[in-house]
Amino acid sequence: MHIQKTLRGHTIYFDRCPRIIATGTIAGPKESAGIVGSFVDMALDDDMFGESTFEKAECKMLSYAIDTAISNADLDRERIDVLFSGDLLNQIISASFAARDFEIPFLGVYSACSTMSESIMLAASMVNAGYVKSAVAATGSHFASAERQYRYPLEQGTTRPPQSQWTVTGAGACVISDGDRGIKIVNATMGKVVDYGVTDVNNMGAAMAPACCHTLIQHFRDTNTTPEDYDLILSGDLGALGSRILKDLCWEKGVDISSRHVDCGEIVYKVIEDEFQGGSGAGCSAVVFNSYVYSKMKSKLFKRVLFAATGALLSTVSSGQGESIPCISHAVQLEV
Amino acid sequence: MHIQKTLRGHTIYFDRCPRIIATGTIAGPKESAGIVGSFVDMALDDDMFGESTFEKAECKMLSYAIDTAISNADLDRERIDVLFSGDLLNQIISASFAARDFEIPFLGVYSACSTMSESIMLAASMVNAGYVKSAVAATGSHFASAERQYRYPLEQGTTRPPQSQWTVTGAGACVISDGDRGIKIVNATMGKVVDYGVTDVNNMGAAMAPACCHTLIQHFRDTNTTPEDYDLILSGDLGALGSRILKDLCWEKGVDISSRHVDCGEIVYKVIEDEFQGGSGAGCSAVVFNSYVYSKMKSKLFKRVLFAATGALLSTVSSGQGESIPCISHAVQLEV
Repeated sequence: MHIQKTLRGHTIYFDRCPRIIATGTIAGPKESAGIVGSFVDMALDDDMFGESTFEKAECKMLSYAIDTAISNADLDRERIDVLFSGDLLNQIISASFAARDFEIPFLGVYSACSTMSESIMLAASMVNAGYVKSAVAATGSHFASAERQYRYPLEQGTTRPPQSQWTVTGAGACVISDGDRGIKIVNATMGKVVDYGVTDVNNMGAAMAPACCHTLIQHFRDTNTTPEDYDLILSGDLGALGSRILKDLCWEKGVDISSRHVDCGEIVYKVIEDEFQGGSGAGCSAVVFNSYVYSKMKSKLFKRVLFAATGALLSTVSSGQGESIPCISHAVQLEV
Repeated sequence: MHIQKTLRGHTIYFDRCPRIIATGTIAGPKESAGIVGSFVDMALDDDMFGESTFEKAECKMLSYAIDTAISNADLDRERIDVLFSGDLLNQIISASFAARDFEIPFLGVYSACSTMSESIMLAASMVNAGYVKSAVAATGSHFASAERQYRYPLEQGTTRPPQSQWTVTGAGACVISDGDRGIKIVNATMGKVVDYGVTDVNNMGAAMAPACCHTLIQHFRDTNTTPEDYDLILSGDLGALGSRILKDLCWEKGVDISSRHVDCGEIVYKVIEDEFQGGSGAGCSAVVFNSYVYSKMKSKLFKRVLFAATGALLSTVSSGQGESIPCISHAVQLEV
């Protein structure tokens, strides 16, 4: 029996520190007007991206992000050993159809809006173990496809409640490789499902904050670190309200993250009032992390980042059957 | 840069051979009348399993399979480091809600009906790398929940076309651990998305057969083996027609699998005529593999098995928008 030396609590240590060597990102017009606008590889004028349906546009954006990440890494597609991807659409069709474009082994994942950090964790696990040399982690979302799948047809013009968020139109991908260039993936904390009984499907931030809190606290315990050890603690898409709840929950557990915490959903839009609590969707943290945060890590503004994307694992059927919203958050620790 | 010694082609070698140390299975009444009936841990009289909806019954079955696998392994839940699971329902709610019942880190996967082999592959990867000591891989499906999500309400009484299959009501889980007892997981071949342009959503076997063929051929090439090296080549849920197509496709590539090949969908039901081409669904290969095949491996009737579950990565939206069906198959090689 071999000795298990790489797991502490729920945190996997990557002793060989796989690296993010390149990213690829694309964002819709509304998103490109915000903080990520000057950092994405492509800022779209039209969120249809030349396609006939929202779903096809979402898939094309994801393909673009994957393709661009591989190009930015100066690799041929044949050098990528595996693609980890998933998305919010039923049966993760954006990821599956994007994977069809690439002659790369594909392992589909689903973790709602925490898909980016789950994908990075799994890709880093495979690279660190020496199973593969290079892997791609990718996800994305589209406001219009999410809206009609999870909520109402856009044509209906339903009024949005003030606690709601706006699904980000965008996609992000990163190439994770062994070697000695790029941003190190030091460890990853696996989340577990946390459900505080929230049933309001318009209040994702409140539903997801406890799962994020659980993973952050678990991470600090497993790694014997404090929030001050990080330049940035980046949650996924809790939005403004969810972020306040997260800070309160952590504070109740004796951990003050307020000086280090930023939420992708809270910063992604230029004028947050239009989107109430801010951005959400798998594309939210995918775009913010792989464009803005990645760039700032490369220029060493942030040297040590804890990235904890958050996901709400509900469906319209589960909510329709009266279930509350089970949530999850997976975290990865990155260092320059 | 460390040397990549564990990947050949698309096949990951597990040098420490993680083991399947126990399984847990449950099947509906129709399924229990067939070959798996005397091998499952629970044969249900009623496919509602005491729940008020099909979806809740599906979730409860998955929870039962996971719980039973852990019990059969003589482990406490706290000893399980991670759960890999997914299912066919939108947003994999069966897996997510089942994971809520367990205080175990959860990594959601989606690979349609190839979820069982993808989950085993990922769990074995984590155990072999030493990240975790014990992991659970699990999936399931339910005829009635799949039917109303993917096809028509049961109440409508729609006539089934002769090329259709019947989604298996059942769930299966296995515990994968390091150590020296149990069935060895020797290697795993990652599939890639293959799409031959089939658009008939009632003909999953025809759609998936090319993906299965691709993975089998890739596996034989990567491992330098032939079909005769296996006691059993077990495909997921191609059904009778899909199995014939698979054999033909392999034969065209110069590989004759006919003396070793069995399809879970083809053998799962007692009277296949009632279900036309046989069984399908993530639960099909999950139940057959984790009950019947696992038992026969333990008694050394099968010493070396290649298990290639197959998945059709479509959704009702993708088909409605005129897309063909992208498919995938992941394979794991098991030895006593």
